[in-house]
Amino acid sequence: MALSPATVSLRLKPLTTTTLRFLSTYHNNLKTFPTTHAPKRAHSFNHLTNSSYRNVRYFSVSAVSTGETLETSKTDKIGEFKKRLRVVDIKGGESEGLDSLGQVLTVRGWVRTLRVQSSVTFIEVNDGSCLSNMQCVIDSDAEGYDQIGKSDPSFPIQKKKVTREFLRSKAHLRPRTNTFGAVARVRNALAYATHKFFQENGFVWVASPIITASDCEGAGEQFCVTTLIPSSKEAMDSPADAIPKTENGLIDWSQDFFEKPAFLTVSGQLNGETYATALTDVYTFGPTFRAENSNTSRHLAEFWMIEPELAFADLNDDMACATAYLQYVVKHVLENCKEDMDFFNNWIEKGIIDRLSDVVEKSFVRMTYTDAVELLLKSKKKFEFPVKWGCDLQSEHERYITEEAYNGCPVIITDYPKDIKAFYMRLNDDGKTVAAMDMLVPRVGELIGGSQREERLDYLENRIDELKLSKESLWWYLDLRRYGTVPHAGFGLGFERLVQFATGIDNIRDTIPFPRAPGSAEF
Amino acid sequence: MALSPATVSLRLKPLTTTTLRFLSTYHNNLKTFPTTHAPKRAHSFNHLTNSSYRNVRYFSVSAVSTGETLETSKTDKIGEFKKRLRVVDIKGGESEGLDSLGQVLTVRGWVRTLRVQSSVTFIEVNDGSCLSNMQCVIDSDAEGYDQIGKSDPSFPIQKKKVTREFLRSKAHLRPRTNTFGAVARVRNALAYATHKFFQENGFVWVASPIITASDCEGAGEQFCVTTLIPSSKEAMDSPADAIPKTENGLIDWSQDFFEKPAFLTVSGQLNGETYATALTDVYTFGPTFRAENSNTSRHLAEFWMIEPELAFADLNDDMACATAYLQYVVKHVLENCKEDMDFFNNWIEKGIIDRLSDVVEKSFVRMTYTDAVELLLKSKKKFEFPVKWGCDLQSEHERYITEEAYNGCPVIITDYPKDIKAFYMRLNDDGKTVAAMDMLVPRVGELIGGSQREERLDYLENRIDELKLSKESLWWYLDLRRYGTVPHAGFGLGFERLVQFATGIDNIRDTIPFPRAPGSAEF
Repeated sequence: MALSPATVSLRLKPLTTTTLRFLSTYHNNLKTFPTTHAPKRAHSFNHLTNSSYRNVRYFSVSAVSTGETLETSKTDKIGEFKKRLRVVDIKGGESEGLDSLGQVLTVRGWVRTLRVQSSVTFIEVNDGSCLSNMQCVIDSDAEGYDQIGKSDPSFPIQKKKVTREFLRSKAHLRPRTNTFGAVARVRNALAYATHKFFQENGFVWVASPIITASDCEGAGEQFCVTTLIPSSKEAMDSPADAIPKTENGLIDWSQDFFEKPAFLTVSGQLNGETYATALTDVYTFGPTFRAENSNTSRHLAEFWMIEPELAFADLNDDMACATAYLQYVVKHVLENCKEDMDFFNNWIEKGIIDRLSDVVEKSFVRMTYTDAVELLLKSKKKFEFPVKWGCDLQSEHERYITEEAYNGCPVIITDYPKDIKAFYMRLNDDGKTVAAMDMLVPRVGELIGGSQREERLDYLENRIDELKLSKESLWWYLDLRRYGTVPHAGFGLGFERLVQFATGIDNIRDTIPFPRAPGSAEF
Repeated sequence: MALSPATVSLRLKPLTTTTLRFLSTYHNNLKTFPTTHAPKRAHSFNHLTNSSYRNVRYFSVSAVSTGETLETSKTDKIGEFKKRLRVVDIKGGESEGLDSLGQVLTVRGWVRTLRVQSSVTFIEVNDGSCLSNMQCVIDSDAEGYDQIGKSDPSFPIQKKKVTREFLRSKAHLRPRTNTFGAVARVRNALAYATHKFFQENGFVWVASPIITASDCEGAGEQFCVTTLIPSSKEAMDSPADAIPKTENGLIDWSQDFFEKPAFLTVSGQLNGETYATALTDVYTFGPTFRAENSNTSRHLAEFWMIEPELAFADLNDDMACATAYLQYVVKHVLENCKEDMDFFNNWIEKGIIDRLSDVVEKSFVRMTYTDAVELLLKSKKKFEFPVKWGCDLQSEHERYITEEAYNGCPVIITDYPKDIKAFYMRLNDDGKTVAAMDMLVPRVGELIGGSQREERLDYLENRIDELKLSKESLWWYLDLRRYGTVPHAGFGLGFERLVQFATGIDNIRDTIPFPRAPGSAEF
């Protein structure tokens, strides 16, 4: 979907033709679109039908016109904050705009298409509040008709099909397209639904730190944060020798901002646990980072994570919470982003609405890792990676389980071998497995990973020793077990994976406004 | 406020004495507190009165007892997600818990104090859901009475007064204190109210990038993000020579993760503008960073910013939005965090509730910078920094205006000299001032700063040239003016300043869970 912007300032006769006040933009190489210039009420507002997304049909909205009612007056007092009238406010209701007939309205947006006929001009105005445009018919004698604003003809996103790769290089303009506008709105709805779900259930949002000198998981693949390299402009021309050294030629960290090596966080979980063991139920929602040198459609160097942590909770509670959370946010999007979801269903992934409705309505299956391995071994399926107890499940295995064995039903696998899971997961009584869970969903595979945390100090210390991690650097994490330890559990979800899941967008770089990946940190 | 935790698992006789199921913690050096062990209904629930915050009064809640009703059963199906019963759910309603009489309830929390008498034991249980404890009386023959969990006696936060500085070194345990529990809850309420305000007004939340190679404002004081220094463990022992060099001895950025110098963002505004000029109204809410080497009570190296951006908006709309926003979130906290606000009013800043109520109720004053300078010059006040048109207002000037000249009323100063403001602010017709605004509030001074943005391409390019900034690196920002430019405006607010403002907490490091400052990146 293409558009090219310019501005317009029009003053039209109320109740005879539609007017746009203030601003809009236009695209003038569109002579071939079919028109239906019939100012019939009934047909005037059928712009939300699916067929109209691509082949836009023009029609009159002649009873909707402009006025001054929403202007803020210039006085010495601060005016009230007024919602400007958005296209979705006019067209989004049950009447699809019919109840606005005869009212004086002010609409402000960008003209996506403009078509001049002998007596009237058709323009399509979009303000980003919804996918569909406000379609208007303007007489050529309307006040302001000749004041249509300009847009440089070099506007790079033209009506002809452009690739997603190209649009990534225009990340500052791509939200003006149908696809990226819809992604932005659905992403927003998922974020707000996330806050709503946790807040309504009494969770406290906790800002886990972004910069941390704590290297708890020994994960590697972290970005270093430093002021030893001169900032901004000068960085490009920095001599490497200017970096301060100790007598032994090592980097002199004592001169760095934090006086020791510091990194971008890979997870807020351990920090979240400190607040869960004080406030009971908390969640983080913030950016996390991986310096993984992988250029795939599933990885970002910077992504947002949601990490709830529940005190007085076991793996059952954790799974129940993860299930309720996913169902809540998916339901929220299906109910609140109907037009955008129809668009994705038609143009991005056929059947996505059914797939998501299944997630909301079907009960999730629960099975142990051991049973899952048995299921895979018994299947007649040839897998690229052979299945064996003790190995991590691959994407092909996960998708077989949820898509084929359970016919599209989300599946939660529990109790993984301890050797393939993190040190903080609670050891089961069998001494071999841990109270971990992964939630698998059709098409995406693993969407959520969680666990009950090891709350027993001696077990946790043993595990840290086994894995040769540092008890010294984990002193504060161990303190949580030393003082009033309680069973607790939590999970993590990559927010951009969720956006992929909910929109059908293939490449994760198209789910975040400004994607960061190897070689890519523009804008 | 001190507490020391350990676990307890009790099973008591319903309807005779209160029981706690599962877990809690205790503090056993408290023999001196006064007790009133009278199981009278009326007195049993007056725990929310102010006088009880510090000198806790014990009383019976003998009709509230435990049961199994909220247990999740272990089956192969995922259970429903159930809210565990929180102390605030029992005590927070209008009846303050009286309507729970006779019901079987499960409470889980940490014992803050425990006092053994001959026949009964008094324990105070807190689960972080609210400030006040669940106060319980237990017979010594109650099931589980002898199973009270342990806490290491080394628990560092004892009942005796501890300093805020000391608590900062125990950032993993300080949320267990009254003050930091209350800060966490009010901070959470402010964050949620922020999302609610913008969402209810049709704004779209946009994730502005954290890592950026775009050095637009030339601000300096940025953190460098790099993988040229080996990550995590090895960083400490890294030879400085291992950093890749070009032939000329410069740092070889082509070998870095992003193939060029990259930094942590100092503001998401310019990125926000790209989405506002597509979706009309957007806001960011995410972390931002300053590598400023200042150890003050008002600065953090890592802090959260809220940056709304409104298209089709001028400075009036911007001020109206900022005012409505601030009044909304403050009102939300006054209405939803009554107990915590009473606590701050009593123990942190006397009169804070009145101060905040004024913000909600009084109209904000608006005046120009030029008038403000005149006002200051006419005042009889001796200022440390002399006042002169063209100089930035200092904190002493700002506080005089809002606290003395306008008697505690918030004041918005507009139209500052262009030379003391950023390049993107819209030039006024006088050619000397820009359409900027700063909102001043009593005690804190500047809380919000905003502006109408320069939407005219030629004006913006002139200003960039004047300031010797780089048009090349701002190509994408200029594109917004090249293609369908529209008037737009926005503002920025440091979230931790807002938490300071709403809680009265002196030091900004006590408003965020894990503060980052020079030399401090622990946890």
